[in-house]
Amino acid sequence: MTQLKKARAGIVTPEMKIVAEKEQVDIDWLMDRMSLGRIVIPANPSHEGLVPCGIGERLFVKVNANMGTSSDRALLAQELDKVRVSIEAGADTVMDLSTGGNIDLSRRAVLAEATVPVGTVPVYQAVVETAEEKGGLVRMTVDKIFEVIERQAADGVDFITVHCGLTRAGLEMLRREGRITDIVSRGGAFLTTWMLHNDRENPLYENYDRLLEIAKKYDVTLSLGDGLRPGCLADATDRAQIHELMILGELASRAWEEDVQVMIEGPGHVPLNQIEVNVKLQKQLCHEAPFYVLGPLVTDVAAGYDHVACAIGGALAGAAGADYLCYVTPAEHLCLPSVGDVREGVVVTKIAAHSADIARGHKIAFERDRQMSLARKNLDWESQMKLAIDPEKARKYRAENPPSEKDVCTMCGKYCAIKQVKEYFRD
Amino acid sequence: MTQLKKARAGIVTPEMKIVAEKEQVDIDWLMDRMSLGRIVIPANPSHEGLVPCGIGERLFVKVNANMGTSSDRALLAQELDKVRVSIEAGADTVMDLSTGGNIDLSRRAVLAEATVPVGTVPVYQAVVETAEEKGGLVRMTVDKIFEVIERQAADGVDFITVHCGLTRAGLEMLRREGRITDIVSRGGAFLTTWMLHNDRENPLYENYDRLLEIAKKYDVTLSLGDGLRPGCLADATDRAQIHELMILGELASRAWEEDVQVMIEGPGHVPLNQIEVNVKLQKQLCHEAPFYVLGPLVTDVAAGYDHVACAIGGALAGAAGADYLCYVTPAEHLCLPSVGDVREGVVVTKIAAHSADIARGHKIAFERDRQMSLARKNLDWESQMKLAIDPEKARKYRAENPPSEKDVCTMCGKYCAIKQVKEYFRD
Repeated sequence: MTQLKKARAGIVTPEMKIVAEKEQVDIDWLMDRMSLGRIVIPANPSHEGLVPCGIGERLFVKVNANMGTSSDRALLAQELDKVRVSIEAGADTVMDLSTGGNIDLSRRAVLAEATVPVGTVPVYQAVVETAEEKGGLVRMTVDKIFEVIERQAADGVDFITVHCGLTRAGLEMLRREGRITDIVSRGGAFLTTWMLHNDRENPLYENYDRLLEIAKKYDVTLSLGDGLRPGCLADATDRAQIHELMILGELASRAWEEDVQVMIEGPGHVPLNQIEVNVKLQKQLCHEAPFYVLGPLVTDVAAGYDHVACAIGGALAGAAGADYLCYVTPAEHLCLPSVGDVREGVVVTKIAAHSADIARGHKIAFERDRQMSLARKNLDWESQMKLAIDPEKARKYRAENPPSEKDVCTMCGKYCAIKQVKEYFRD
Repeated sequence: MTQLKKARAGIVTPEMKIVAEKEQVDIDWLMDRMSLGRIVIPANPSHEGLVPCGIGERLFVKVNANMGTSSDRALLAQELDKVRVSIEAGADTVMDLSTGGNIDLSRRAVLAEATVPVGTVPVYQAVVETAEEKGGLVRMTVDKIFEVIERQAADGVDFITVHCGLTRAGLEMLRREGRITDIVSRGGAFLTTWMLHNDRENPLYENYDRLLEIAKKYDVTLSLGDGLRPGCLADATDRAQIHELMILGELASRAWEEDVQVMIEGPGHVPLNQIEVNVKLQKQLCHEAPFYVLGPLVTDVAAGYDHVACAIGGALAGAAGADYLCYVTPAEHLCLPSVGDVREGVVVTKIAAHSADIARGHKIAFERDRQMSLARKNLDWESQMKLAIDPEKARKYRAENPPSEKDVCTMCGKYCAIKQVKEYFRD
């Protein structure tokens, strides 16, 4: 039985208890939200050592960090470092997107390392193995896709990205309207290549019931991918994107009928002034299913700083109702990120998520900022360090720049504003 | 005659011509907007080598970088490096906030170095000199303040922050409502200390006509400072802040009557969901005077990453109508920034400003992103590097991570999505 089925049956699971406690929400309320599909707990029973995490309505906005080998860089040890560093820096989930080296080995190592939910994109492995076995991804069989999905589910993967809503109709809409960057989703590009070359419909769409069977059997949460997400601002919120979103809404409803947990993935590259409408539209068209956004990046020109472009978009998306932010690192659009890039990406996306929590009126999130502000007022530097989003970096700055007087910093020195007016605003 | 007076008289200045050309706007329209006070060109005739810059309605959102010595760190050479690095990284203006060492020398060196408009906060120097001469800032005379203002104006300073709207009434409102961090503006704290200790009104408010005379004589643009800006989310948008904003609106009108150019400064620390209302309120209460925001920071806990918290807030403020963003560096709340921190702060704030430009429908800004997207589609890496917000950093990432095939990157290697589907979406 999936967590969703149990919630509907009124069965309290250990996972629900942990989530309710971590989020400080009432368990009955949580189960009600899960029953409606508005909250998911991706928790594959085969993932040993997992500390469960809830995603969705009124919970803390969550942050995902991607890692995994590529055909050009297949160093598993480095990818496992990224898992550790991400979790330390506060990532709520990780995704193993390996396409290089031994993919089964990578995934199993990530699952063994990660105490947070682990996601994958199974079509990557199906494509890589087909390319190796048969010389080209267009020779991939439908059975191959589902064999890989089941292999990954059996390993304990908690959620999988499946681009089920990318259909021939959506591609035709894309072609008629025209785009600059066409398709930038890797999974979307694989499926499109397969579909157009073989003149067939998307196998994940045609065989969605088969997917639901596997998801139900292993309690794998489906993260319905947006294969047609815009790859640049000029392509944002176009008919192809919204067509796919509507199909994803239909597929979410079908998942709920089968007690399968489901999330919806969203863009991508979106101008700042289009973010709110994207979030509200998803919530409406997908009946409040959790929304998992990749970015959105609010400009195309921030290469080297795309983590910041993502933080801007992610904060705004979260404030508008998105539930789950996929990080972007400074290496985005340039190369596979280093361990340092991964850490930077996680911290910055946590800032976006936290800012969104505050904007959404989350009292626990706000209280942390209030405590920080009290520490500032009291010139209590130790508390300031402890409350910082990244105490390590904050301490480093202060240690390397010792002030002349212990209670101030080198920015204002003895002319510290807070110190200056302290005596006039005593209680 | 100030630029404003000339605009009203229909006199086209070289500064207006340069701004109209840089911004690609019609000069008659520009002069009309200047006449209304909606656009300023801070350009002190005594600032040699200045390349003028316009700030306000429908122009590119501008970015300011702060620098200057402190009582704890008075290394002029390093501060001048910051000026150079800031301008190289795209800062539209710089402010010399020196309070350590020889302040006259610092300011003159910054003015000689900077080809962009230079701003200062004269009360800092008045306070530091008074403290040195008389042992305490409370002994500062009104004449001292105006003597320093005129000294700085005569040197060629293009704009000055003057906290004229911080009144006894505003302080009383602050006291009645209560705050966590009271006053965090350095200028605001100096004036408050002086006002409360001497039981007098703000000398910059009481003698505002005297200030206008100096501003008119030297064509120094007034940047009306927000001495009561919130220093934490909990204090944001409170009655003290809005009271000061209303006074600033009155003072802006009085400046316009005297043909003095004026901008309004804004917060500070503001939750994401309160930013738009802050901007709209400023535009309304100050009759569309240019709005210069410091941040806003959307969380209090991002020490070490406050540049990112500022980029989130700044992008949103800019999209809502703010015209001018003061950068924040990663060192904010911790220490005086290094040259590297300054560079990072400028680039990240430029990303915020650019994202805001796009959200505001700025066609030139959007075109840059479109060109970048075309370069991505064409796997044209050289153009991608040139169009990046920081080509140096983007090139470094790519050079250090060479892909196996020249047209892709190490993120996806041979499984590059764009390369994959290229043949299916040819024109």
